[in-house]
Amino acid sequence: MIGGVAGQTMKAEIIAIGSELLTPDHMDTNSLYLTQKLNEAGFEVGLKSVVGDNADDIENLLRAALRRSQLTVLCGGLGPTEDDLTRVATARALRRRLALHEEILEALRRRFAMRGHRMAKINERQAEVIEGAEILNNQVGTAPGMWIEEVGVFLVLLPGPPRELRAMFESQVLPRAIRLGSQRRLKQMSLGLHGLPESEVDTRIAPIYGRYPQIQTTILAGKGCVSVRLQRWVAPGEEPSDLEELAGKIHTELGDKVFTTTDERLEEVVGRLLREARRSLAVAESCTAGMVASTITRVAGSSDYFRGGVICYSNELKADLCRVPHELLGQHGAVSAEVAEALARGVRELAHSSIGLSVTGIAGPGGGSEQKPVGLVYIGLADEARCIHTRRIFPGDRETVRELATSLALGHLRRFLMPTEEAA
Amino acid sequence: MIGGVAGQTMKAEIIAIGSELLTPDHMDTNSLYLTQKLNEAGFEVGLKSVVGDNADDIENLLRAALRRSQLTVLCGGLGPTEDDLTRVATARALRRRLALHEEILEALRRRFAMRGHRMAKINERQAEVIEGAEILNNQVGTAPGMWIEEVGVFLVLLPGPPRELRAMFESQVLPRAIRLGSQRRLKQMSLGLHGLPESEVDTRIAPIYGRYPQIQTTILAGKGCVSVRLQRWVAPGEEPSDLEELAGKIHTELGDKVFTTTDERLEEVVGRLLREARRSLAVAESCTAGMVASTITRVAGSSDYFRGGVICYSNELKADLCRVPHELLGQHGAVSAEVAEALARGVRELAHSSIGLSVTGIAGPGGGSEQKPVGLVYIGLADEARCIHTRRIFPGDRETVRELATSLALGHLRRFLMPTEEAA
Repeated sequence: MIGGVAGQTMKAEIIAIGSELLTPDHMDTNSLYLTQKLNEAGFEVGLKSVVGDNADDIENLLRAALRRSQLTVLCGGLGPTEDDLTRVATARALRRRLALHEEILEALRRRFAMRGHRMAKINERQAEVIEGAEILNNQVGTAPGMWIEEVGVFLVLLPGPPRELRAMFESQVLPRAIRLGSQRRLKQMSLGLHGLPESEVDTRIAPIYGRYPQIQTTILAGKGCVSVRLQRWVAPGEEPSDLEELAGKIHTELGDKVFTTTDERLEEVVGRLLREARRSLAVAESCTAGMVASTITRVAGSSDYFRGGVICYSNELKADLCRVPHELLGQHGAVSAEVAEALARGVRELAHSSIGLSVTGIAGPGGGSEQKPVGLVYIGLADEARCIHTRRIFPGDRETVRELATSLALGHLRRFLMPTEEAA
Repeated sequence: MIGGVAGQTMKAEIIAIGSELLTPDHMDTNSLYLTQKLNEAGFEVGLKSVVGDNADDIENLLRAALRRSQLTVLCGGLGPTEDDLTRVATARALRRRLALHEEILEALRRRFAMRGHRMAKINERQAEVIEGAEILNNQVGTAPGMWIEEVGVFLVLLPGPPRELRAMFESQVLPRAIRLGSQRRLKQMSLGLHGLPESEVDTRIAPIYGRYPQIQTTILAGKGCVSVRLQRWVAPGEEPSDLEELAGKIHTELGDKVFTTTDERLEEVVGRLLREARRSLAVAESCTAGMVASTITRVAGSSDYFRGGVICYSNELKADLCRVPHELLGQHGAVSAEVAEALARGVRELAHSSIGLSVTGIAGPGGGSEQKPVGLVYIGLADEARCIHTRRIFPGDRETVRELATSLALGHLRRFLMPTEEAA
């Protein structure tokens, strides 16, 4: 019996089974869920595989897994069809027998009878259990799971559908994994940044995190924001201060580009700043057509500070609702600094809000010119005292330009709301 | 030399290397890209793995891969640090030597010099090449890739950063893979459905696709839509009609719930219907706060038929802009059939569009009551002749309710625009 060894790494491994998982559009979310939960239980995930419905491949993978990992989690392939090979392949890898489990068989029959069906013979497979396995009940679907000990290492068979897998893992596997797992815990911190490209973040902080080799530093970029994740395994009783120390040094280096050290999203930070200042917001969106508003309103309770606004996709709505003078539109065009500022002022008045925010730009692929290329975006911001704008040219396709424009709008709104400085 | 064998399946395998890939928030997109490209080249992907920076694990995985797959693609671990173990582990698995490649070394030195740096010793690792490998140039980054033949099977080493991996694969690996690959091609069709839950789709079509065991049928659910994907490998010269036949039968069974058989998205279908009928659209969004508008405007050229609209998050904007009478708001509340219809009529007049579409609902988590629970959503639709509404109660969290409401709005707009029938 292994497990509970303080300070020693316990390795887990995840094997997902099913040919449908090997298509170009299948996102594997089960393994991300399982990784998080296994980390919580003190297991480091050393390997993940996805394998098709091929009994030889499953058997070979499993043999290798049992040699190197203390806990192997198999997901999927427990259904009733001929493609569901997990039970058979596992029995072969362990050289154990499969036996029909009378109680499970009865439960399956009752389940079918309740719906007025007679159970087809093929469904009996789901009542086959590997010799010596503990049964894990499936509260959500039909296929039961199994927990198996094999010469000091452990193996768990879970159904593939995420709802069934999660319910079974949470209630029956996690408690067992915690008992087995090392008492090491994964300690994590992250910093959210806006307004710096990933490469610049890395160039500036690499010399800092390079001095903390015991901490795993990962830089993740997405839609205008960058997040820096720090993590390391901590032994029981150990109270290291190096994570906070490193996070503090990175924060000092990057200054007010850091919008959170507590996992807040940018729209949550903006919402908090609006709430704290008792200010309200309205938006006028052209090329983003509601993306800024829908991002701001992801936050529960945002109706306290968010009034709404105008999707001024047509020039008529820019003029009629946001009171942008026709001459301004004619002279500078809808995508211009002048119109961005006028939209911000106009929507602020229209909605009687403290702040007006506008976005106007050319998302493409059509509509660009030499003076105004695809990707050109203006953000306008107005309150009772100020009216400013920002100009940027973004690379990428239509959706990327719109996402980056949305992120830029939120980033500038944050700076506009920060008490210490003017927006850039 | 294998390859080019007509009608025989060629197996490929993908191994991604890097401990940072084994965290709970890492989405593996490289393997989806590679799967699509390998399928195009006539390879079936039989296995995918993600492994940490552990030379023994990489070596063992690679040995197993070479036994079962005709083409193995390794991604990542080619950088200059001590964690970058792909070269060393591959050399060990193949029992070949690693040698410093003078030309690559020179190119690396020049690259550093151009930026005014002297290359650190550690970077020399990136110039180490496995004996007998063909070099794949990296046009985007520093680490070169390698193409290796090993007793009739093939191995390719690619850098991990997606931009570098894609550029190298596209220009240097894909042509080689196509030459090797079987001339079998993956033939695919898909149907897009709206207005039926995944389980009902499966119950209704399982007896149909069950009669086509040679076709792999996958049902994917997401945000109110369901897609049914059909695929099968086709030998050279074979012109099977069974995919179209099965798609036709599924279409007949599900009727007008099918909105596409040509991979159009729901917003593209709606856009096409608007364009064909020369009609224009405006929206009034409360709980979705711009999600409907931003979805509709994902389509390039949508400004031809989409005017814009109002994000009427506050009741003031519902009344002031969309001309919803204050009495109606007082009597029925903002989330009601009456207000949904009034909003649709109001925004249509405001924007001078042919059609007005509205969404009002309670996204939660707060704001629900016994009569009006969280998840309650009304959609309103108005044109010159009709004004109708739909009511639905959605399960799930705030973001799920908003996404399902957006999808419902688009689905009902599609039915409203269909010439053959009234919207339900």
